[in-house]
Amino acid sequence: MIKTVIIGSGNVAQHLITAFRESGNIHLVQVLARQPETLEKQFPDLDICTQAAQLVDADVYVIAVSDNAIGTVSESLQLNNKLVVHTSGTTSLSVMAAQNRRGVFYPLQTFTKGKRLAYQHIPFCLEAENETDYALLTDLAQSVSDSVYRISEDQRKALHVAAVFVCNFTNHLYQIGNDLCEEHQVPFAILKPLIAETADKIQTLSPMQAQTGPALRGDTETLNRHLASLTDTTQKELYQLLTKSIIDHGKKL
Amino acid sequence: MIKTVIIGSGNVAQHLITAFRESGNIHLVQVLARQPETLEKQFPDLDICTQAAQLVDADVYVIAVSDNAIGTVSESLQLNNKLVVHTSGTTSLSVMAAQNRRGVFYPLQTFTKGKRLAYQHIPFCLEAENETDYALLTDLAQSVSDSVYRISEDQRKALHVAAVFVCNFTNHLYQIGNDLCEEHQVPFAILKPLIAETADKIQTLSPMQAQTGPALRGDTETLNRHLASLTDTTQKELYQLLTKSIIDHGKKL
Repeated sequence: MIKTVIIGSGNVAQHLITAFRESGNIHLVQVLARQPETLEKQFPDLDICTQAAQLVDADVYVIAVSDNAIGTVSESLQLNNKLVVHTSGTTSLSVMAAQNRRGVFYPLQTFTKGKRLAYQHIPFCLEAENETDYALLTDLAQSVSDSVYRISEDQRKALHVAAVFVCNFTNHLYQIGNDLCEEHQVPFAILKPLIAETADKIQTLSPMQAQTGPALRGDTETLNRHLASLTDTTQKELYQLLTKSIIDHGKKL
Repeated sequence: MIKTVIIGSGNVAQHLITAFRESGNIHLVQVLARQPETLEKQFPDLDICTQAAQLVDADVYVIAVSDNAIGTVSESLQLNNKLVVHTSGTTSLSVMAAQNRRGVFYPLQTFTKGKRLAYQHIPFCLEAENETDYALLTDLAQSVSDSVYRISEDQRKALHVAAVFVCNFTNHLYQIGNDLCEEHQVPFAILKPLIAETADKIQTLSPMQAQTGPALRGDTETLNRHLASLTDTTQKELYQLLTKSIIDHGKKL
């Protein structure tokens, strides 16, 4: 059993608490949360402390707090050279205080409060300062997930940008679909099967094989009609730029 | 049983052939295809003709050809005022010859050759010139799907633009994710669970509830770091414009 402590009480912390407790190979011995109320309600039998000085012994301490708090939190951990990892896609390992051994334990997924996830499918991106720690983190991640990767800092940061494109920006395109539906008084539900199938295709086809539509076909008649129909300036700009990007991408091949 | 004929041999025609043949309420009496080879292989027991003059009697004739061929194909149908419908999201009903009764039978989905779909979830957008024909089209669509909508021409064209945003443009964002992975030598597979979950969230949350990321948080430090890390000009422009669009959208509320 890998003895772990989670530090934090937010969305990622809550999902990791659930995932760790469901694993037969992890013993979550304690959680450190300055505001423990939410966690106390959600996990009544959890050992929650509110001060770093109260922390007990563990093999790995997982910091799951907002990016800009990672440095300060790591400094507060007087742990006699224990392994401390953060869960951020965009923060360097070196942001953490060097008084402990350091690593990265980044789950590449979008976490929604209260929405269950199949933790075994979440990719964990790992980084450590030495092979022993890397092996321990691998063991920890494999206790939760089938999908574990050794990822360098540069690769992790690139993945974080890629995640913004395929998650945050994609959701904003759903938002625009929603806004167009509202503008024309049709239910957004009518687009949901298309959204589901578009994502489903990419599980088996490459994005290039899956690409369809007027931009790819060079169907300028439809493109112009679409552009003329859009009343919102930003929607028009996005339509133009995304169309151009699809056409240019086709030319590169 | 509704007697139907399908005209066309492409992707949409193939899926409609399958869907119609699986329905207990539809009798697909004939298919008209100028190049019947593909269909003959795929559906050996189908009655396929190659000339409009060979068409037999049916209740509905479904034109599933490319948008710019709909007018010509409809003119070739000498059918004694039968109900003829097209399946296009972006073509006006009035493009079809007025020698027959006219309607629209638009399945709002992305069709992949050979990939099975749950036809009962595909939204069908219907239009007709009178209530009797509308009732017949409703009966036909409900024989395939649980999701049938009366949609005006303007609404349908708006839905087609919305579909470009949530399907074609979304897939292009997957492409950019793929390209960033290749550039930094990480497998694209690492993004697939995130893509699946992003689409899955939208089945139960509104796009506004589902939105996350540095643009929404106003996290300019991360935004600037991301922008600086992108080497491709178009990717940079897309990152900036999509970020601006998310921020502006937040301000409108």
